[in-house]
Amino acid sequence: MAGPEHSCGVVGVAADCDVVFYMHRALNVIQHRGQESAGISVFSEGKVTTVKNDGLVSEALNEAALAGVSGKVGIGHVRYSTVGSKGVLNAQPFTVEYNGGTLAIAHNGDLTNHRELRAQYLDKGWSFISDSDSEIIIRLIAKYLSEGEDIIKAIRSTMAKIDGAYSLCVLDNDVVYAIRDPYGFRPLCIGKVAGGYMAVSESAAIDSLGGKFVRDVEPGEIVRITKDSLESFPLDKPSQKAHCMFEWIYFARPDSVMDGREVYDVRKQVGIILAKEAPADVDLIMPVPDSGRAHALGYSIGSGIPYEEGFMKNRFVGRTFILPDQKLREQAVSMKMNAIRSTVNGKRILIVDDSIVRGTTLKKLINVLRDAGAKEVHVRIGSPPIIAPCYYGVDMKSRDQFIATKYSVEEIRKIIGADSLAYISLEGMVKALGFPADDLCLACTNGLYPTPIEGEKLRPQKQ
Amino acid sequence: MAGPEHSCGVVGVAADCDVVFYMHRALNVIQHRGQESAGISVFSEGKVTTVKNDGLVSEALNEAALAGVSGKVGIGHVRYSTVGSKGVLNAQPFTVEYNGGTLAIAHNGDLTNHRELRAQYLDKGWSFISDSDSEIIIRLIAKYLSEGEDIIKAIRSTMAKIDGAYSLCVLDNDVVYAIRDPYGFRPLCIGKVAGGYMAVSESAAIDSLGGKFVRDVEPGEIVRITKDSLESFPLDKPSQKAHCMFEWIYFARPDSVMDGREVYDVRKQVGIILAKEAPADVDLIMPVPDSGRAHALGYSIGSGIPYEEGFMKNRFVGRTFILPDQKLREQAVSMKMNAIRSTVNGKRILIVDDSIVRGTTLKKLINVLRDAGAKEVHVRIGSPPIIAPCYYGVDMKSRDQFIATKYSVEEIRKIIGADSLAYISLEGMVKALGFPADDLCLACTNGLYPTPIEGEKLRPQKQ
Amino acid sequence: MAGPEHSCGVVGVAADCDVVFYMHRALNVIQHRGQESAGISVFSEGKVTTVKNDGLVSEALNEAALAGVSGKVGIGHVRYSTVGSKGVLNAQPFTVEYNGGTLAIAHNGDLTNHRELRAQYLDKGWSFISDSDSEIIIRLIAKYLSEGEDIIKAIRSTMAKIDGAYSLCVLDNDVVYAIRDPYGFRPLCIGKVAGGYMAVSESAAIDSLGGKFVRDVEPGEIVRITKDSLESFPLDKPSQKAHCMFEWIYFARPDSVMDGREVYDVRKQVGIILAKEAPADVDLIMPVPDSGRAHALGYSIGSGIPYEEGFMKNRFVGRTFILPDQKLREQAVSMKMNAIRSTVNGKRILIVDDSIVRGTTLKKLINVLRDAGAKEVHVRIGSPPIIAPCYYGVDMKSRDQFIATKYSVEEIRKIIGADSLAYISLEGMVKALGFPADDLCLACTNGLYPTPIEGEKLRPQKQ
Amino acid sequence: MAGPEHSCGVVGVAADCDVVFYMHRALNVIQHRGQESAGISVFSEGKVTTVKNDGLVSEALNEAALAGVSGKVGIGHVRYSTVGSKGVLNAQPFTVEYNGGTLAIAHNGDLTNHRELRAQYLDKGWSFISDSDSEIIIRLIAKYLSEGEDIIKAIRSTMAKIDGAYSLCVLDNDVVYAIRDPYGFRPLCIGKVAGGYMAVSESAAIDSLGGKFVRDVEPGEIVRITKDSLESFPLDKPSQKAHCMFEWIYFARPDSVMDGREVYDVRKQVGIILAKEAPADVDLIMPVPDSGRAHALGYSIGSGIPYEEGFMKNRFVGRTFILPDQKLREQAVSMKMNAIRSTVNGKRILIVDDSIVRGTTLKKLINVLRDAGAKEVHVRIGSPPIIAPCYYGVDMKSRDQFIATKYSVEEIRKIIGADSLAYISLEGMVKALGFPADDLCLACTNGLYPTPIEGEKLRPQKQ
Repeated sequence: MAGPEHSCGVVGVAADCDVVFYMHRALNVIQHRGQESAGISVFSEGKVTTVKNDGLVSEALNEAALAGVSGKVGIGHVRYSTVGSKGVLNAQPFTVEYNGGTLAIAHNGDLTNHRELRAQYLDKGWSFISDSDSEIIIRLIAKYLSEGEDIIKAIRSTMAKIDGAYSLCVLDNDVVYAIRDPYGFRPLCIGKVAGGYMAVSESAAIDSLGGKFVRDVEPGEIVRITKDSLESFPLDKPSQKAHCMFEWIYFARPDSVMDGREVYDVRKQVGIILAKEAPADVDLIMPVPDSGRAHALGYSIGSGIPYEEGFMKNRFVGRTFILPDQKLREQAVSMKMNAIRSTVNGKRILIVDDSIVRGTTLKKLINVLRDAGAKEVHVRIGSPPIIAPCYYGVDMKSRDQFIATKYSVEEIRKIIGADSLAYISLEGMVKALGFPADDLCLACTNGLYPTPIEGEKLRPQKQ
Repeated sequence: MAGPEHSCGVVGVAADCDVVFYMHRALNVIQHRGQESAGISVFSEGKVTTVKNDGLVSEALNEAALAGVSGKVGIGHVRYSTVGSKGVLNAQPFTVEYNGGTLAIAHNGDLTNHRELRAQYLDKGWSFISDSDSEIIIRLIAKYLSEGEDIIKAIRSTMAKIDGAYSLCVLDNDVVYAIRDPYGFRPLCIGKVAGGYMAVSESAAIDSLGGKFVRDVEPGEIVRITKDSLESFPLDKPSQKAHCMFEWIYFARPDSVMDGREVYDVRKQVGIILAKEAPADVDLIMPVPDSGRAHALGYSIGSGIPYEEGFMKNRFVGRTFILPDQKLREQAVSMKMNAIRSTVNGKRILIVDDSIVRGTTLKKLINVLRDAGAKEVHVRIGSPPIIAPCYYGVDMKSRDQFIATKYSVEEIRKIIGADSLAYISLEGMVKALGFPADDLCLACTNGLYPTPIEGEKLRPQKQ
Repeated sequence: MAGPEHSCGVVGVAADCDVVFYMHRALNVIQHRGQESAGISVFSEGKVTTVKNDGLVSEALNEAALAGVSGKVGIGHVRYSTVGSKGVLNAQPFTVEYNGGTLAIAHNGDLTNHRELRAQYLDKGWSFISDSDSEIIIRLIAKYLSEGEDIIKAIRSTMAKIDGAYSLCVLDNDVVYAIRDPYGFRPLCIGKVAGGYMAVSESAAIDSLGGKFVRDVEPGEIVRITKDSLESFPLDKPSQKAHCMFEWIYFARPDSVMDGREVYDVRKQVGIILAKEAPADVDLIMPVPDSGRAHALGYSIGSGIPYEEGFMKNRFVGRTFILPDQKLREQAVSMKMNAIRSTVNGKRILIVDDSIVRGTTLKKLINVLRDAGAKEVHVRIGSPPIIAPCYYGVDMKSRDQFIATKYSVEEIRKIIGADSLAYISLEGMVKALGFPADDLCLACTNGLYPTPIEGEKLRPQKQ
Repeated sequence: MAGPEHSCGVVGVAADCDVVFYMHRALNVIQHRGQESAGISVFSEGKVTTVKNDGLVSEALNEAALAGVSGKVGIGHVRYSTVGSKGVLNAQPFTVEYNGGTLAIAHNGDLTNHRELRAQYLDKGWSFISDSDSEIIIRLIAKYLSEGEDIIKAIRSTMAKIDGAYSLCVLDNDVVYAIRDPYGFRPLCIGKVAGGYMAVSESAAIDSLGGKFVRDVEPGEIVRITKDSLESFPLDKPSQKAHCMFEWIYFARPDSVMDGREVYDVRKQVGIILAKEAPADVDLIMPVPDSGRAHALGYSIGSGIPYEEGFMKNRFVGRTFILPDQKLREQAVSMKMNAIRSTVNGKRILIVDDSIVRGTTLKKLINVLRDAGAKEVHVRIGSPPIIAPCYYGVDMKSRDQFIATKYSVEEIRKIIGADSLAYISLEGMVKALGFPADDLCLACTNGLYPTPIEGEKLRPQKQ
């Protein structure tokens, strides 16, 4: 899928050793969640040091940047969105000094009442340094702390004010708190690593550190993390869940497990169900590499039709060469993926991808296949059509950007030039995900939002 | 495979338009054949301009480097080997001015009598500017031209002097010649592109330009290429072929076709034959991404055992972070590939790769699988053990670097920690390749060399 | 002089055209005041855009960084000090959103009650995003504005709270304010440029824009700057001035004029007076390039002894080559300046510089002269010995760093290896400066501070 | 002067220690002679290693480039001219392998019969790798060595073939030869350094290494340099000298001494003579920094009129900011130099520079002075008008580029906007230089060439 890009990723670690390496590796493993900036805050000898810069983890947190930075407790962040001023001012972690020391925050998600809260506190005489909704979260926590609340109380008071999606790692001097909003929109899980504990957006990061997955942070829960212990502060009453289905379908790594469901397995199930829902009389099944691979394998299993790798990615294609004319430029884009002629030539082919946002990439791939001699090209999509914006942390803010709000499936088929096109049904996808539909946020596919959003429909509420 | 790296890649184009873009794209497509330096020479308005630099095509031939460079005829090169002095002095194309104008050469392969020829001409009073065997080729052509021979005669006279492997693109002022040694060690093929013709190491480059594959350059053949025509100057008598089998097994792109055989298909056949030769009682077949994917699909087809993607590459892992201790450093290397726990856990797994050189990568991958809960890990290899050096252009120069010269298959199994290990037989691989064994260079697997090499055995000669 | 580095520089412009170019050039001209980071804030279409980065103006504010940035009102900053966290978090301009819009600030100087103010407001529940004393200034202004004061009142209320040195440019939405503390420690002046008006740290920046110097901002004055007008809000009662004498002696450009005195002329007068106070029987007068040139010319005029350029700077000396041993490393440092042997050989030489902080550079230069054959080397210094720290914006915070607090003049002479050494007297320097001594801050040379500093002596107060 | 840029610089060292640092520093000191590329060749353990790259010494020969490079004998080069192909192919040292080992060459100067020699040897069947005239020199030496001549004989045979300007350092395996053409166009001198001897273009490099100047290489002389000895192979008969006068007037460092004359002193004498030849009724004398400083001091001495520093260079002016319109762009160029208003305002000023090539810089400076209030601006030039091209190594190849071939002195005065303009006379300059006119090459000022050049006049030959 070439449309909605990733949101953000967070990590927090407390251990009996320098945690900079832990955070660096973990941020690398969740780098796909945000490639605009990266940062860490560590606590050492009474003070918090923050390093954050634009770019990939390997650039933003390179050796020079991290020289002399160490500590046994810290949080980190990779960031996608580009809201706000230029430069690294909105990079995270975001830190403030308050009268009890230093607070730092790493945030994945979007507050839905950010503008209202901001206006309200501006009217109270506050001034804000950034455009980020994370600033209001940390300033509110600091405010409640300054007013004498303890940290758990201060976080709860803050959670009572803020609405929307937030998975947070908060560093209060030398203690890490992992916090997830009451709906559990974005993932956050806990792991045991050598010498301590960590919280991180995706479990694959725990694996990569040789650690053991402990459990997910529950919706609405606050977990206090020290090198020796995990202490839970759950919500008083169980919340109504709304896990973002797109995390499994598209965002997360295949090797992550979230809220009990393995991502790779969900995608394979999607393929198996798609094969039943939308069969095709073809010679072979091919994935769009690398996003559609698990879905395509599932379709092959479900249909009994052979799986083949028929695309070849051009790893080294440079981005800097300005091409002489428009036609060449279009060719150059297609050049990112070649077809293996011997596999494709004369065949009826079905390709599987996770989603369609604008359809431009698929159109090019179908052309590549036809140029390589494919007799027919059919397309199956591992999610229902996207028709509504996301207010919970995915960069799909406007209905205009979705092909499926403007065209019917048949029209999209014509636009991308496929011989047939089918999406998995909402029911089919929910079944593959393995959760009750009520526990998922499906708003981008059905327009029913788990929380009140002005101008949008609220999903039916549980009794 | 992490051992023998690629050799080099060449391209030559003549067309009725600026060929710089053609060469730039073609070199990008064959970038896997050499990532140390890249260069092009173009002829325009009576003179040859050469741009060559260290680095990938996208860096070495970036916009700034190519500003103002254009021409309707040219050759290009990507280079692997690091023989000779530092810097770009050995980058190609290599050019000389002679009394008839300018010659430029792009060379893939190694001469086996380079040292003897060099000594011989030093004794005749020549001086050499570089360590490269390509210099002696072009200086000999220039010498014969200066002595009044026509270009075809001069190339033939040069070919009579030089032994070993060479696929060449030569630019003599405004004409391109594609030349392949009499054994056809390295690939070279011809394509029709809009406005003209091209020669290039791999056919995928022709596809990527929207061109049509015409044919391979025959062993020993010289092809004169102009925008309008191809003129063939074949060897007088048919040569004894010796195509490097490693080109299909490892070097070339899956989407290339060389000497009539599709690379992807060869690899799948290897897998199918391996499944028959060395069956295994396992739950699933997994490729080592991306090198073993076609072989593994073949094994799955041959065995009827499901194919799964169980490894996840970490795309963003940075190379610059210096890790605090040796143990972390080892972990970091393994971090390039994670296992998908849900796929692997509790399973008997067979992984397939194209070859083993040192065995270090496989050992790490097997560890990763066991850490992720694999019950058994079996390994199948798509080529016979490598036991002898290559003198024909692959960077495997010493017997010491091969694990298979020091250890038995059983010992290697123990070293890498597999539950079972098997290589395809030489016969099996030859069968998959689809050529008579006599037409292949199999020296690295059987120690029998197609041409006389001091201290090595000559393969039985055809009558 | 190689010791106290520069403080900071500020600019503010309002004009009937895009002011980004004005600010870029002005910051370049005052680049010597701060080379750690550079930034600008411009107001356009209802919002303030800030671009700031580490590095020189030419890097931090390069074309890419400024792409699309424009506006008719703006402020800018170059920064020296390295207080606070790593990275650009402390770069300026510093901006906040308050309930009336956006405030931005550029600050040159140091508050002397920063820690007290910060503690006081932390106790009131505020949280701070940076370590910078500029944050408290702008947050206080925002606070008073939020409480309903008008901007002039809010600035006055803030000035009533803050002590120490501050020359400020403040951007309140689309209006620029230039503000100078009541003592006038740091310079700030006003100019007329095509289409509007500007405030800037040094008058040379006005010249370089083809503008006309209007006047200095008075100590304690606020000047509202629009494209059409200058509006003055002076202090109610005249303040006691304390212009930093080092601005003329060392910091400022020779081509600047501050508080009515030309820098180049002050330095020449210093030399003339030095020649009377501390004559020497030598053959020639040489400057330490480029800092001592005007002083040396003055000494030559005052003494009638010929002026010669006897040092040659090595412009291209690289900083990156790590030298094999300590001795070579020392030589390498000396290599930044060679002597012109023909000028120096056999001569009695007097060199003039502006100040001595640690003495290491002078020692090396004297060695260079002796190696080149100088018969005698005498040294004259254009300021009195520095013996006390600066709390008003110069990076000389500790007594330990001054050679003159540890050694007598005679001891320093021996350390640097001169045949004679003399400093100008305090009276002499004050005379050259041309101000009443009461209007200058001379604390670093006499230990008497214009404002109360804990643990330091207050200078006698005017009645 | 902003016109003719520098030619090249060479160095050769033999010592009882690693000479890489010696060469690195020496090349830094002569960096002004060429800033396009830099390189060194060192001999160690039987082989020559060459490192050369584009850029300044500090970039081209940075730590990474020199890692592991060491040796007790070596030569080095900094290069100006941009003749030939792109990239580092024409960077020096230039090396060849011949049957006796390796030869390397570093060359300052231009051969006047390069094209003829090249054609001649192309006709003999040679092929050339570069466009550089240095290749033919080294290939000829190699040829004569291969034919059995000893190295001195081979160099002499080569010198018999080549015409024009050449100061060479040649490395024949482990011995360094310093060679100067029979006219002595370009400088080359010998020094004693710790552990050995060196040859270098300018004596300042010897000083900077703490060495002692020994003597100049004589015109036509070959000097064999080892760590222990200097062995001279002079010309049989004394040659007719033709030292390039521009070396003293413009190219060389003020702190160098060449052929017995100190550069700084020559320039001061030029000023003194100019003051007599072309007096002016002005208030002060100012140099164009930094090129005219010594000339201006001389004029001040000669005239008795005070010397002042009235220009201020803007050190930090960036080159990358693209300015919005042409007018601003012109202003930006002027911004490289500001006037010190207090010095300049209301004064009659005389500025001195070394030469005028195109006049554009002077025109701008005069404007800057007038904008700063100068009442009159007079210009004096320390060399006669340049009216003829240089064929001996200076990049002034065409008559069209000289303002003085197109305009009279009065016209030039008007173009640059001066109140008066005068050049030193040829006789005056020769007198300042202190050589017989017959020993100088004055061709660029009088059109009479020391050696035959097709289409140019030969200077009267000595009997």
